[in-house]
This record gives sequence, structure tokens and C-alpha cells, in this order.
Amino acid sequence: MDEQQQADVVVIGAGVSGLTAARRLDQAGHAVVVVEADDRVGGRTVNLDVADGVITEGGGQWVGPGQDRVLALVDELGLSTFDTFVDGKSIYLRKGRQRRYDGTIPPLRPHVLADYAQAQLRLERMARSVPLDAPWTARKAREWDATTFGRWIDANTATEETRLLFTLAFTVTSSEDLHSTSLLQQLFRIAACGGMDHMVNITGGAQEARVIGGTQRIALRMAEDLGDRVVLDSPVSAISYDDRGVLVRSARVEVRARRAIVAMAPPDVERIRITPDLPVRRAMLQRRWATGSESKLFAIYDRPFWREQGLNGQAVTDLPVANYVVDNSPPDASVGILLAFLGTAGAGHGLHWSDALLDDPTARRDAFLADLVTIFGPQAAQPTAYLEKGWTNEPWISGCVGSRPPGLLTQYTDADRRPVGPIHWAGTETAIVNQGYIDGAVSAGERAADEVGRVLEPTTVTTARSMS
Amino acid sequence: MDEQQQADVVVIGAGVSGLTAARRLDQAGHAVVVVEADDRVGGRTVNLDVADGVITEGGGQWVGPGQDRVLALVDELGLSTFDTFVDGKSIYLRKGRQRRYDGTIPPLRPHVLADYAQAQLRLERMARSVPLDAPWTARKAREWDATTFGRWIDANTATEETRLLFTLAFTVTSSEDLHSTSLLQQLFRIAACGGMDHMVNITGGAQEARVIGGTQRIALRMAEDLGDRVVLDSPVSAISYDDRGVLVRSARVEVRARRAIVAMAPPDVERIRITPDLPVRRAMLQRRWATGSESKLFAIYDRPFWREQGLNGQAVTDLPVANYVVDNSPPDASVGILLAFLGTAGAGHGLHWSDALLDDPTARRDAFLADLVTIFGPQAAQPTAYLEKGWTNEPWISGCVGSRPPGLLTQYTDADRRPVGPIHWAGTETAIVNQGYIDGAVSAGERAADEVGRVLEPTTVTTARSMS
Repeated sequence: MDEQQQADVVVIGAGVSGLTAARRLDQAGHAVVVVEADDRVGGRTVNLDVADGVITEGGGQWVGPGQDRVLALVDELGLSTFDTFVDGKSIYLRKGRQRRYDGTIPPLRPHVLADYAQAQLRLERMARSVPLDAPWTARKAREWDATTFGRWIDANTATEETRLLFTLAFTVTSSEDLHSTSLLQQLFRIAACGGMDHMVNITGGAQEARVIGGTQRIALRMAEDLGDRVVLDSPVSAISYDDRGVLVRSARVEVRARRAIVAMAPPDVERIRITPDLPVRRAMLQRRWATGSESKLFAIYDRPFWREQGLNGQAVTDLPVANYVVDNSPPDASVGILLAFLGTAGAGHGLHWSDALLDDPTARRDAFLADLVTIFGPQAAQPTAYLEKGWTNEPWISGCVGSRPPGLLTQYTDADRRPVGPIHWAGTETAIVNQGYIDGAVSAGERAADEVGRVLEPTTVTTARSMS
Repeated sequence: MDEQQQADVVVIGAGVSGLTAARRLDQAGHAVVVVEADDRVGGRTVNLDVADGVITEGGGQWVGPGQDRVLALVDELGLSTFDTFVDGKSIYLRKGRQRRYDGTIPPLRPHVLADYAQAQLRLERMARSVPLDAPWTARKAREWDATTFGRWIDANTATEETRLLFTLAFTVTSSEDLHSTSLLQQLFRIAACGGMDHMVNITGGAQEARVIGGTQRIALRMAEDLGDRVVLDSPVSAISYDDRGVLVRSARVEVRARRAIVAMAPPDVERIRITPDLPVRRAMLQRRWATGSESKLFAIYDRPFWREQGLNGQAVTDLPVANYVVDNSPPDASVGILLAFLGTAGAGHGLHWSDALLDDPTARRDAFLADLVTIFGPQAAQPTAYLEKGWTNEPWISGCVGSRPPGLLTQYTDADRRPVGPIHWAGTETAIVNQGYIDGAVSAGERAADEVGRVLEPTTVTTARSMS
């Protein structure tokens, strides 16, 4: 360990949420230190290099209307957004039959459309009865938290096609298998995200826009402003706390502070020994929060050739690998990028293909490209590059955002964000509105900064200084 | 790190399962090294000192008929068992009304008894359709794995009293909340454990007998036989593997071996960096296996005074803390011990009382003793000692055995025990018969030793030797 530091607040985790908390506290005149395990900032937002100056996002990548906190931050940081490409027809491919369509609703037969609509209507009606700040107090909370969203869908829809569409929608919006996640948790998300259409849609919805240069720039800009107060490559091994403050031990620095903000996914906090013991509810929440195992697959082409065919690059399919495809090209279309999400279950054979790479490094790529050829024709067979980003085997991140399995909301209630002594919690999992989105990460960081700011007396403002 | 060793097999974890595996391999002439993070052996079996020479068990404590592997091992180790004390009447206390009864079935009104019986009958009929070696292939596997055991009970029983009884039974047998655990997982356990009566009963069931001197003696005896091949205080930080073998790095020793047996609860394996990456199914299983947060509370008296009143010390109640009480006195009754299980949810207010200790160290004790006075009278108010053992905040163990939340069995299937290269898996969670019991730990250790033994050529037997 290099040195000892002292601060008003130590923030653990330099993802969007932790850096936002640190930025707000810094702006209010408090001395902050941010400690990060990894050698980069951004957490579950990360830019992957595609070609000279071109990136694609390996993690969270979209912003949209209603995501006020992230949009305000993007603006504050001098960054810009551009619209996800939607001009042209989308493709719906099921049981070998391919159809092109405009707008957001695939060309479903009337009885399938009616089936999907009745399920959505009922889910949204149920969601309206869930209090956003205390979902566990909903009248049917106990019943809804004791079963899965997937079981409800299976029992309340009439067609296999409807179930495919729900599966695809939730693979993208929740990086989670429907049959593992609590029905109450998903009703809460539907309510807090402004309804299912908003969650699923591109235009007018949560996938409407992207950040020019990639979403990791949000974290990179904030880290730049904080300068050497962000300590990278420094996994935290222990936090000890009492009424007066915290002592945080990490690989490169030991920080004493009056308050700590832990801005990590709940399961990742398990890597830290915290003394005295956490309350049982908090400890169990950390162990049981189910991170997701979704991957992103990218095929890079010299240009977005599908646009020349009047296609926008979007596809919803029942193919093995490429179930949900979108055009992820940069704003200037200097290259063409097709992105697919590889889920862990459901319509595709996500788990099979998630694991396939271990045995045969090219098998997943080949299967993905074969699907793209089926959808977009032979030009898709020859990308200039192939990229993939999985989140299961990151060194310091245990997976995608994921969600709560049954029982967690009703048993552990607000343990995600209830402070423990001088330890406060951030991270998108602690957000109410847009939990799981970058916007939730921002609002959670701001909420944690507010909590801490209210406690710190203005007179205690000190300058972070080295004690080594 | 002190030294480098070489062995045929390195076993990680000196609980019952790991030590059994090491013992069997040693008996077959293979060189073994056992590496343990903690300063003791036994894992989730541990003896707590009560008075001179008297112990009570902080973790797993019972053996019973049908648990052939642990009973054979107990015999092989020269240990003996004694019957759980059952002579006298049990107490059933609900809504302030206390009744005494003989045998295993509380004095239920006929309609409650009928309700309980029909639920049990249907569960056991469903359980019979679950293939023990592949529960995910049951015809209704997908449906049953997408909901919780608690939801099934709520929807298929007519009385609150029946639900109370199921909750209490499963708090004790699964250290898990009914509303978090997969219905399929519990049907599999019911099938593999020989039915619900067997799981719940003392006489003739899984709680029939105890080991004289405490169950930790099983591990202590095996460790004694293995001598300095058991390395304590040596958390494993990394395992790297290839086709030829493994390299295990731990605090005190680095071991090269042809095979590794990891004998830890699945979530605890997350503490180890494994290279190359684990398959996604295995990685996700580890993250999502839900360990339990049950505690054991003990009141120690100078003698088992309740026996003088014709009581056997057993009680089933709807009180806040002492929901399920048993006589845990030593075989010679030199002191009297009452044991209660504090679950995390359900009938009692387990989570409240699990957390209460943090705010007020005596609150939980006082509430427990108040309940014992309600059940057993004023003599219960003055124990000579009070002990408690929780499993949430152990340094190297993430909780009680617990179980699978919805979705794990159908998504990850046999990832609990499918070898990954030269890495084999033990621990009671990998057992088929009596999963979660000490017997499952023994059979899993023996199964892993068999797997490894079949791979190791007889000619490769070497003597474990220090390379430092």
C-alpha cells in the first residue's frame, strides 16, 4: 500500500454512479477520494475499439426520454447524443418466414397481437398498484414476489409467439431470464420506467439515443475532472466503520473518511470484508442479487450495407444466436456495425452459445454470422471484424445488472439503499426510477451524495491530503 | 507463502466433504493435500463449548436412517451416535393456546390435518415424477422451476395453520425461506430424501440421532488421520488449470496437482480466481446459489428441567423467536440445552430478530428466553448460559446450505457437479441423495474421489513432498 489519505467522503467504485456521487460532493466543496479496483473507469459502460477512432459500447449504451438525470449529466459534461438509426424497415423472422415492417410493432397476426396486448395491459395495470418507493407494500406483494415473471407470462398468454416476444424484450431490457426474476420486481420496474412500451421502444423509448464517442465518455470526463482523486488498480479489501467514520483499505491507498459511498453492484460488495458485520438483510441482499450473463456480439462491416436495401438493421428473430439485432454504427456511418444480444435462456440457445466459446473459439462467431446471413443476406458473411463482450468473467464485475430473484423485495425491502452506519450505497441497482439503466446509476449517485451532504457539516470541509 | 508442494490431488475445503474425498483418495494410495481457509476443520459442522467437556453443535448436527454414507463413516472413525431425546410430550402452541401431544403429529383439528395431508400427498406425487439424476428433465420441470415452493403452498392449502407448519418444517430442513426457493428444487429434495415425513421427523427421520461429542468430530478425526497434509489458515486465492493439471495458490502453500477437488459451497468458490474462465453455467450457478441465513439459539440450564414435567423439550409454536424448539442436551444430560432455529422469514419474525442483535446485543436473547418461558414456564427464564450461532457473517462461509432459487435447475442443470477440466466439485450441494445434509457431504466427497480415482493411473502414485 502506497499511502494514507484523509477525506470527507471515500467513494468505492468508479462507475457512472460512484463518479457522479464524487462529482456532486466535490462541487459542494467536500473532499472526496474515489477508489477503483479495475484499471479503468466506467464500470458497466465501456468503449471497445473497432477501428481508428471508431468505438462500440461493450456495456450500457442507450439513453432516452424520461432519463432526465443522465441527459442532464451528458449535457453538463459537454457531450452530445445522436439518435439510434431507425430509418427503413425492420425485419421479423420466425419459423423461417421473414417479413419487413415499419414502426415498432412486428407484423403479428391479429390473435397474437391481441394476446400480447392483453398481457401488456394486465401487467401495466398490476404495475400501477406497486408503490415505487416501497414495492413490498403492494397489496399483492407477497404473492407476486413468490413467483417469477416468466411463470406469469407462461400462465397468462395464449401463444408461443407472444412468449417469444416477451422473452426477447426482457433479454434486452433486463439482461435476465424471465423465469428467474421476481414478478414483483419486474412490475416495479415497469412502473418505475414508465411502462413497457417505453422500456422496449427505440424512438420515444429507452433505446432512443446514444452518446457520441460512446457512453464510457461519461465516466471518463468525470474522472478527468476529479484528477488524481481517482485511484485506479486499487481493489478494496476491507472497510471498518464506527460512529465517527470509516477506514477503507485498498491495494494502493488507505483512506480515512467521515462517510463512505459504496457504488458497486450488490454482489460485488461481497469482495470486501466489512467490520462490524453488515445487517443480515443487507448481507443476504448482496449474496442473492442475481447479476445477468448477457453478452454483446458485434459484426463490423466497411459500411452499413443493409441501409442500401432499405433496412434499418433491426431484426427480431427466433434464430439460435441473433434474436435481437440493431444497427450500432457510429453517427457518421464510417463503418457498419450490427449488434446482437446473447441472452442466457429463452428463445435462443443463449447458454449453449455463451459456453460454446470455451470449447471452440470460432463456433460462436460462425453461428452468429450464419444468422446474420439468414437475416441480411450474403453480404453479412464477410465482416471486417468480429467483437464480443461478455460480463460473466470480468475480474471485478460479477455480471450485467440483473435483478432480484423471488423473495428479495419482500424479505430485504430497502436493504439496497438503507445506509449502514456511515456507509451509503449507490449503483444503478439502488435507483428507483430507471433501475438498471445508466440513468439509474446517475440518480443513485446523486441521491447518495445528497444523503452524505446532509450529514457533513459545511464547517468540516477539508482538502483531501496525502498523509504518507 | 511458505512452500510449494506437489500431489496427485489437491482438495480445497476441509469440511466433511473435502476431508472425505481426501481420505478416500489417501486410502487408495494417492498423494493428497487439503487446503483450508479457516483456522479449523469442519466447515458447516462446528462444536461450540458449553461447559467443561460439554458441547453443542453450531451447524449440522443430525444423522438418521437412510443416511448410509455418513453412518458408515461415523462407524469407520470409531465414533458413536445417540438418539435425539424424544421421551415425553411435545408442545404445540398457537394463538396463545398450548397443547401437549405424543408422537410426531401436532394435535391439529381435522380440517387442518386433512389440508396438510392433501398438500403433502400432492407434493410427494409430484416429487415422484422428478428424475433424481436430472430433475430438469421432469415433464413439468420448466413450470415448477419458474415458481417458488412457497407460492405453491399458498395456492394449494386452505388454512393459515397448514402454511405455518410447512414454513416451520422447511426452516429446519432447508434453512431457507419457502418463498425464495424453486418448487422443482424442493420436489427434487423431497424425492431424494425419501419423502417429507422422513425429512421432518425425529424418530425414523433425518433428525433421529446425534454424534457423541458433536458432529465436528467427524471432520476432526479425518483431519487427524491426514496429519500435516491438511493446511489450515490458508485461503486459496487462485486456481489455474490446463489439460495436465492444476496450480493452486493459497496463503501458506502453493500446490501443483493432477486434479483438484473443490469442496466448498458454490457461492464461496467465487472467492477464488479461476483461470481460464469457468463456463458461464458454472459461474452463474456459483453466483446464484442462495445460501441461507438461519441461526441457532441455545439456552443452557443446569439440568433438562422440562423432562421432570413429562416434556421432551420439543415445541412447535407461532411465537416470534422460538418457533421450533428441541432438546439438545448431551447424552448424559449433565446439562440441559434447548435449541431453537431462527429462520429468516415465515411464521416468526426471523429477519427482524436476526438483525436485532446489531442494535441491541441482549434483545434477541431476551426475546428468545421470553418465548421459552411462555412454552416451558418460569424455570426457563434463568439459563446458566446463552449461546447463538449465525452463519451470515462467517469469514469464509457465506451462509447455511440454502438451495436453488427459481431457474437454476433448468438453466444450469448439472453445473454443480460437472467437472471443468481437471477441477472436480464436492460439497453437500452437489449430492443427489440427502443434498444439504452431512450425509450428502460425505457421498459427494466419495463421488468426487471416485471421479478422480478413475482418472489417476495407478502408476502415477507419488508421495506428497515439499518442494521448498
